[in-house]
Amino acid sequence: MVPHLITALAGPLNELEQRVLDATPAIERWFRLEWMEHTPPIYAAIDIRNAGFKVAPTDANLYPTGWHNLAGDVMPLAVQAAQAAIEKICPEARNLLIVPENGAPGSFYLENLARLREIFGMAGLNVRFGSIDPALRKNQTYPLSGGGSIAFEPALRIGPAALRMGLKHFDPCTILLNNALAAGAPGILEDLYEQYLLPPLQAGWTVRRMSRHYQCHEEICKRFGKLLGIDPWLIHPLFAACGEIAPGAPLNAEALREQVNGLFSKIRRKYKEYGIRDKPFAVIKARGHLLHLAAVRDVKELDALLAHLPKGKNGNGKAARPGAVSSEILVQEGVPEAERINDAQAEPVVYTIDRHVIGGYYRVCAKQDAGERTRYVPLAFAGHAQLPRPAPENKDGAAAPNRFYLYGVVGRLALVAASYELEATDPQMLTLDDAV
Amino acid sequence: MVPHLITALAGPLNELEQRVLDATPAIERWFRLEWMEHTPPIYAAIDIRNAGFKVAPTDANLYPTGWHNLAGDVMPLAVQAAQAAIEKICPEARNLLIVPENGAPGSFYLENLARLREIFGMAGLNVRFGSIDPALRKNQTYPLSGGGSIAFEPALRIGPAALRMGLKHFDPCTILLNNALAAGAPGILEDLYEQYLLPPLQAGWTVRRMSRHYQCHEEICKRFGKLLGIDPWLIHPLFAACGEIAPGAPLNAEALREQVNGLFSKIRRKYKEYGIRDKPFAVIKARGHLLHLAAVRDVKELDALLAHLPKGKNGNGKAARPGAVSSEILVQEGVPEAERINDAQAEPVVYTIDRHVIGGYYRVCAKQDAGERTRYVPLAFAGHAQLPRPAPENKDGAAAPNRFYLYGVVGRLALVAASYELEATDPQMLTLDDAV
Repeated sequence: MVPHLITALAGPLNELEQRVLDATPAIERWFRLEWMEHTPPIYAAIDIRNAGFKVAPTDANLYPTGWHNLAGDVMPLAVQAAQAAIEKICPEARNLLIVPENGAPGSFYLENLARLREIFGMAGLNVRFGSIDPALRKNQTYPLSGGGSIAFEPALRIGPAALRMGLKHFDPCTILLNNALAAGAPGILEDLYEQYLLPPLQAGWTVRRMSRHYQCHEEICKRFGKLLGIDPWLIHPLFAACGEIAPGAPLNAEALREQVNGLFSKIRRKYKEYGIRDKPFAVIKARGHLLHLAAVRDVKELDALLAHLPKGKNGNGKAARPGAVSSEILVQEGVPEAERINDAQAEPVVYTIDRHVIGGYYRVCAKQDAGERTRYVPLAFAGHAQLPRPAPENKDGAAAPNRFYLYGVVGRLALVAASYELEATDPQMLTLDDAV
Repeated sequence: MVPHLITALAGPLNELEQRVLDATPAIERWFRLEWMEHTPPIYAAIDIRNAGFKVAPTDANLYPTGWHNLAGDVMPLAVQAAQAAIEKICPEARNLLIVPENGAPGSFYLENLARLREIFGMAGLNVRFGSIDPALRKNQTYPLSGGGSIAFEPALRIGPAALRMGLKHFDPCTILLNNALAAGAPGILEDLYEQYLLPPLQAGWTVRRMSRHYQCHEEICKRFGKLLGIDPWLIHPLFAACGEIAPGAPLNAEALREQVNGLFSKIRRKYKEYGIRDKPFAVIKARGHLLHLAAVRDVKELDALLAHLPKGKNGNGKAARPGAVSSEILVQEGVPEAERINDAQAEPVVYTIDRHVIGGYYRVCAKQDAGERTRYVPLAFAGHAQLPRPAPENKDGAAAPNRFYLYGVVGRLALVAASYELEATDPQMLTLDDAV
């Protein structure tokens, strides 16, 4: 099922979309060459905003959940991509251990895990779930709403000298993390040199930095923009890094105000250049902080927000928790979402396995005044939906051009950025650098 | 659309099917390890017969046509497999030259070429058609029934010292043969060391030998049968090689009769072992000969056939054509087809790109008394159709088991056999052997 999407395209996007579709062979070749040099994360979900005048990623999640929101008919693509990934990573693999989030799983999260088990099971692996939650001391079986169940088993260090991680009588070749490691990597995941741990530990937000991701993304978009002859701003959100905030530390309001101001000048220049009459906005990103994801349309709005923050020393209204980690503050150009499903804002989310875009859905934002909840509308890629339109020679008999292709390209640019990021923070590469 | 198939399963097949589905992780691992050592043909179409009591391949076509008979919704799978193949073969590729069959193309063949252009175009290559038909001296454009067109251009040797093949202003990295080279490889295809020629020249029937293919297949099925704990006969057709027949030479009827007799003894033993009450039959395979694909139920029927052959010296009723090539004679166990669509016999055909099964269709045989023509019923793999059923833990909520999986396994066994075959006849490998 492909939802009826009312796109409100304006300004240069139609041109951008056309240019991207026309350059398909060059674009696909560009990605092939990138993947010769860089390794994509095993899986990812990329949030995209389509403003009409620009299309840009707003988040690249390297521990993606929500797999159950994908349409059933993208499963063969997901399985084929997983097969190709296994073949490259560990062709001898028999067993895969999936590490779920800690805590008691909700029913949607269980459906997500069931879908991951299905994908990697059909790709030819024995799949089991090994929990690293210290509170889980014995096997725990959770029923699935559609029948069947998911069993969480306590993950153990196994083998001689406990060099490996697995379950009782289950020694996996690869460990797939579906746990975002919010508080950092626990000891059980450290020093696993004999197994593939995917994504690697530095993909957790205690190591990742949004500023590093968007710096990588900016450079990549500059190169990609040259290839296509387009302004990289059309596919990249402007941002300003505002440093780290330690748990319990006060927010440096003046520095933040300055960064927001500088960002607005840049956005306004671009809006003027392209004749965009929308009022620009910026989004504050600061994980674990009350300001996280707050949108402001000018410095005055920021001041109002800051004035209303609770007076707690760390600005999040709570005393610093033990084990709480520093969070980075970033201000990002707000990209308005022009896609609509039944009048509600619909944000595309693109899912990847290895280097392949395998599907996606629209996150349809709640109309809060109508008391609605956020919904997920799967995009079925039956037929040719995620593919570019046929070659130009075939124009006469060609189907409508595929508007999802651009999202697949934008999603993969964020994926390339994530691969640069993971390389830059790879402890093994850092050790090599030190040695030189 | 998945057609309603009335399968007439009897004897050990249900057990075989169950065993194959249960062993999915072991089977997928087995194929992964095979593909570490061997290179699959770039594409193939494998004819399969499902007798109920056994399932076996009857032909592995390495220049597959009929791509237009596949359902539209397998296209994303085909494109993803093509992308993965390009990445391995020639990641820098920009251009692909497809070499079509010689002669004026029929409308179905043009649709086949259009589908191939679509697959490799969407995978990110500029695709053009270079004809090696000496009769084609200038560009020739053929309209497609659904709009658009296909242009055949005369293939040329290009570049310094004419070491490459291409078109005027079109230098491909890879050349895809969709021309079965019935009379052997013409000079224009020889000594192309700078480009990838796929499949390689030894995939043509002037070099391929059915007996070599089925010998390889027999060995592979023995090993695969051990893995599964099954009799390899359940997935392999018995055969007897009856040598070559040169153009113009008389058929050695006595030798053929002896081989047919020996084959029938073997088939009867197997039928007895499994309590199969069908009357066994054998199929004579001899390309270019009047007896090709004749089915006989005993030696008497063979004698009757031989007695009715025209008295021409070469047994094909014609004088040997200049340039006619030797053909091999093989007698193969006939595998009855138990699948039916509306009472008509339906033979599954499995399509592969690189190592991936990407789709298939049923060849529905004409009811000749009703004046019908052979039809092709695409199998839509929407949802999970070409995947094995979910992991055993999920049994409660699982969908019906996927009966196509077995065909995908049998098809890939023939693909492995073809890869062994192409290695055994690789001129570069032979040269290396000579050098030792």
